[in-house]
Amino acid sequence: MISNNVIFIMGVSGCGKSTIGQLLAQKLNIPFFDGDDFHPQSNIDKMSHGIPLNDEDRYGWLLTLNKLAKKQIQKNNCIIVCSALKKSYRDILSEDVQRQVKWVYLVGTFNQILERIKKREHHFMSSDLLQSQFDTLEEPKQALEINIGLKPEVIVEKIIKEIKMKSEFGLFGLGVMGRSLSRNLAQKGFKISMYNREVKGTEEGVAIRFKEAHKELKSAQPFSEIKAFVNSLQTPRRIMLMVNAGMITDMVIEDLIPFLSDGDILIDGGNSNYLKTKERYDYLKTKNIHFIGAGVSGGEEGALKGPSIMPGGNKETYNLIKPYLESIAAKDANGLPCCTYIGEEGSGHFVKMVHNGVEYVEMQLLAEVSTILKLKGNNPNEIADILESWKSKADSYLLGITIDVLRKKDGEDWLVNKIVDKAGNKGTGNWTTIATAQLGVPSTLIATALFARYTSFYKEERLQSSENFNIKPASLNLEIIDILNAYQFARIINHYQGLKLISEAGRSYKWELNLSEIARIWTNGCIIKSDFMVDLISVLKENDNILSHQFIIDLIQSFKPSINKVVAQCVLSELAIPCLSESVNFLNAYTTANSSANIIQAQRDYFGAHTYQRIDDDSGKFHHTNWK
Amino acid sequence: MISNNVIFIMGVSGCGKSTIGQLLAQKLNIPFFDGDDFHPQSNIDKMSHGIPLNDEDRYGWLLTLNKLAKKQIQKNNCIIVCSALKKSYRDILSEDVQRQVKWVYLVGTFNQILERIKKREHHFMSSDLLQSQFDTLEEPKQALEINIGLKPEVIVEKIIKEIKMKSEFGLFGLGVMGRSLSRNLAQKGFKISMYNREVKGTEEGVAIRFKEAHKELKSAQPFSEIKAFVNSLQTPRRIMLMVNAGMITDMVIEDLIPFLSDGDILIDGGNSNYLKTKERYDYLKTKNIHFIGAGVSGGEEGALKGPSIMPGGNKETYNLIKPYLESIAAKDANGLPCCTYIGEEGSGHFVKMVHNGVEYVEMQLLAEVSTILKLKGNNPNEIADILESWKSKADSYLLGITIDVLRKKDGEDWLVNKIVDKAGNKGTGNWTTIATAQLGVPSTLIATALFARYTSFYKEERLQSSENFNIKPASLNLEIIDILNAYQFARIINHYQGLKLISEAGRSYKWELNLSEIARIWTNGCIIKSDFMVDLISVLKENDNILSHQFIIDLIQSFKPSINKVVAQCVLSELAIPCLSESVNFLNAYTTANSSANIIQAQRDYFGAHTYQRIDDDSGKFHHTNWK
Repeated sequence: MISNNVIFIMGVSGCGKSTIGQLLAQKLNIPFFDGDDFHPQSNIDKMSHGIPLNDEDRYGWLLTLNKLAKKQIQKNNCIIVCSALKKSYRDILSEDVQRQVKWVYLVGTFNQILERIKKREHHFMSSDLLQSQFDTLEEPKQALEINIGLKPEVIVEKIIKEIKMKSEFGLFGLGVMGRSLSRNLAQKGFKISMYNREVKGTEEGVAIRFKEAHKELKSAQPFSEIKAFVNSLQTPRRIMLMVNAGMITDMVIEDLIPFLSDGDILIDGGNSNYLKTKERYDYLKTKNIHFIGAGVSGGEEGALKGPSIMPGGNKETYNLIKPYLESIAAKDANGLPCCTYIGEEGSGHFVKMVHNGVEYVEMQLLAEVSTILKLKGNNPNEIADILESWKSKADSYLLGITIDVLRKKDGEDWLVNKIVDKAGNKGTGNWTTIATAQLGVPSTLIATALFARYTSFYKEERLQSSENFNIKPASLNLEIIDILNAYQFARIINHYQGLKLISEAGRSYKWELNLSEIARIWTNGCIIKSDFMVDLISVLKENDNILSHQFIIDLIQSFKPSINKVVAQCVLSELAIPCLSESVNFLNAYTTANSSANIIQAQRDYFGAHTYQRIDDDSGKFHHTNWK
Repeated sequence: MISNNVIFIMGVSGCGKSTIGQLLAQKLNIPFFDGDDFHPQSNIDKMSHGIPLNDEDRYGWLLTLNKLAKKQIQKNNCIIVCSALKKSYRDILSEDVQRQVKWVYLVGTFNQILERIKKREHHFMSSDLLQSQFDTLEEPKQALEINIGLKPEVIVEKIIKEIKMKSEFGLFGLGVMGRSLSRNLAQKGFKISMYNREVKGTEEGVAIRFKEAHKELKSAQPFSEIKAFVNSLQTPRRIMLMVNAGMITDMVIEDLIPFLSDGDILIDGGNSNYLKTKERYDYLKTKNIHFIGAGVSGGEEGALKGPSIMPGGNKETYNLIKPYLESIAAKDANGLPCCTYIGEEGSGHFVKMVHNGVEYVEMQLLAEVSTILKLKGNNPNEIADILESWKSKADSYLLGITIDVLRKKDGEDWLVNKIVDKAGNKGTGNWTTIATAQLGVPSTLIATALFARYTSFYKEERLQSSENFNIKPASLNLEIIDILNAYQFARIINHYQGLKLISEAGRSYKWELNLSEIARIWTNGCIIKSDFMVDLISVLKENDNILSHQFIIDLIQSFKPSINKVVAQCVLSELAIPCLSESVNFLNAYTTANSSANIIQAQRDYFGAHTYQRIDDDSGKFHHTNWK
């Protein structure tokens, strides 16, 4: 057992809590406390007169026990027995120490317990109160349940085996992200089990060698067999899947199911499609397995030092894994975890998907401004210097790494000059574009950034057409401040569009989303963390549409002349700047009271009799005209 | 029966063709011809010596019968009996008159027929030849099959009922497109059945009233009951579904299945998703029903006067409906039908989907140039005059209708000024954007045009932000010729991207597509027909990539300075021109030998260890760097 924990032994009066607790304390050689000894006299009086305690009576007593737990945890482990019949009582008992509390629930039938009480002497609990105890009981969901019919020695052995030997959290899949999350969990003091498959020749003894390589994993249990891995976990089991999204995830779930029990929890931490997450949630429900789809951002380093986590699914289930996820998550400027319950179904994976879409655009914008600066005659180091100077106004994680990237030398040359210009993608940009098309939301920049990567992939065609067309970008006459302003302008449009997509998805799928909270958990740990994201927390508290907030309107208006200039100049110089260009077109369209879409409606009515509405007919009626 | 048809009665020697043919001719009072009477002496000699004829012997004879059929068809109906055992024989017999030929196939077992032959006298067919006849027989797929066990009178009655009373083609769903196609089929001389559902209060007696309203439908049969509709059709039945794409199509198929027979053909003429078409094809195969997904373009008028038709599915099945589809299709400049077999699976619907995507862009470009011309101070009539003057260089159906649209008055004002600027969409633009994302093809303009419609839908937000931002497009200093050139430039990019998407889909799904043929059937009947499309037929004969053809390269180079100027000016004037703008960005990216995607690859490797390739490492190996 990891040190500094408290084991609460709970159950109705008469179930044998004290006996078991004392025996267990003896075996483990740790202090034992009987909750009943901490009742104030007023409570004892009531009980001895056969008057049931009410919640008010209990409140101070439960707080006392909570304080006791906190104090003992400072020193080492301890055992406290307490009936703890209601969820609200247990919440008080474990307040602020949730992750250090282990629950053991002793289960018996009414008659079983009545029998025992009758045999007792010198106990101030009258047997008449038993029924009220059963009426009050709300069974716990995350406790180790043990039947009182067993011999005390057997019960104690079971508890020791479960709590002392078993892990509290399982990590399935030790790829880049799985490894980092394992170390992160272990560093936070959790006892974990880690699984990686065994593939002859390519993946042999992965988990065991990984454990050996990192001293923080000394109490972690490594496995290459699924059954043993599952059995090594405390119930209800908490297993986080860190495997490739797609069919692999389904296969892994099928492999796990035979060994899981009712109420176990699977957490999919991969970049799964949000619609698949909903399907898996529904499927696993039929097997009585809980499922949480959790987006995890931060890359290798974030996962190790603190990622941003976006969990979606059932809220009650989330609460059962909350202590783990919030402990390993990054912390925002106020010390709060960059992990928050997003909403129902696949909302966590949806939000993560849009996060990645926004990331695509941020990366593309940095690539575009770098090209502009290059065309102005700067070498990578000089470009890095210019970007460095932007940190005071537009700092972000991606700006920072781009500076590092540009500075990296490879012999006499810069490494970036040696990299093949074909940008890969792993599906989330693609999915965001599809979602935006399906939901009817114009997230134009995400699509544009995705397509820029696709175009980069047509390297052969580009080489050929560069010869055929012989278009050579001319030099640019632009001030650095205009380029910075244009960059900031496009970033605002990018964030508007990403958040708009999330808010429209929330409306469509009836998820109750808190955009400000989403911005908050994106202020640290994730790839798109930035100073601007911090600004958005308060902007989004007022309105989901950031473009209607005066702070943003003022920014846009101050940047607009610059982006106009930059885009016009680049077009005249024949330099491709798809995202910068689309950002200004989008704002121009977005601020057009009367657009040219009336012509499109007329055309559609002309050839397809699709009808149109009239500005002078408020009824919303649809009209058709014979146009010839 | 529609006049000017020939009924071929076929089957192995001895099946009773002549008896049935003569009886039928008598009943119908039309000429009768026994094919055997037209054998040259050399064939008769061979047969009387028990020597089987070979295909060479038969060739001249079959041609003679084909000529006879053609000659008789000029006058009226007739009956010809002929064994016609092989498909290749039947192809010769029906050459050039496929759609006027009806096949009756008399079916019997070997023993049944051997018995008959033995009873005969004075017949030059030796009974020994029967086995070779059975060996040769390739059963027809589109014939009326009748068992020879029935009495001759019953057989004749069945044939008359089937051929005289039954329709050759069924139209299911009398919406805008279904009505036009019905009239088109009837005008071409086909006997059709038409079905429309009966919905109390909204759709009552639709088919019967429709028939009564158009004299060309005098021999068409109207139905509001599915069973009667299906039974009114000759087998194998040919039923074209013209219903709303999506779930309705599936429901209609389920409604039809109980009444269909093996070998019947369903043609889905709606704008169905190409992936669903594949699913339906596979599903119906399990029920022995053939399925063709046919894209139909041309709108209401095209469907009536001749649409462009894009059928996909099994080629053999297509041949069974080819005479009907090709008769009703528009004709290209050489008189060939604007209908061609596209390829396997959902390829027909895929091509139609991309057609619509290209259409979205063409419409958006016309809307954008109209806005530019408006900002230059022209009223709708003046804009129409300018567009009219473009016809000599860039004529298209959509240009023509836009001119009509702009000229239409509504009282003192122009009607277009009265139309609400919220552009609708019915799914195909959306699907094209999704397909382009899924297939990894940068069809940027289709996405941009789709998103422009989506943005137009945010009317409330646009009105609000137009006040908040107060962006008012400044006047433009542009020559008309530059605007025309920019328009032509963007159209080329649009056609490149659409065709590229089709060719990449063909590669992915292993469809064998002929892009030049696709351009050819798009030169008439459909919404995107244009002079440029005619040019593309020969361009695509040389290369699927039009941007690598010198004719196109020259055009692009001559238009490029103009589009640069137009886009730069519009951006500076704060006018939204998303498609024009993206077209120039796309070409600039497409002609860039070394793009900024190297920076993106470096960023990806930095935070996600996604690795990259090096320009100085031809092995294609993936490298990873610790960038800090």
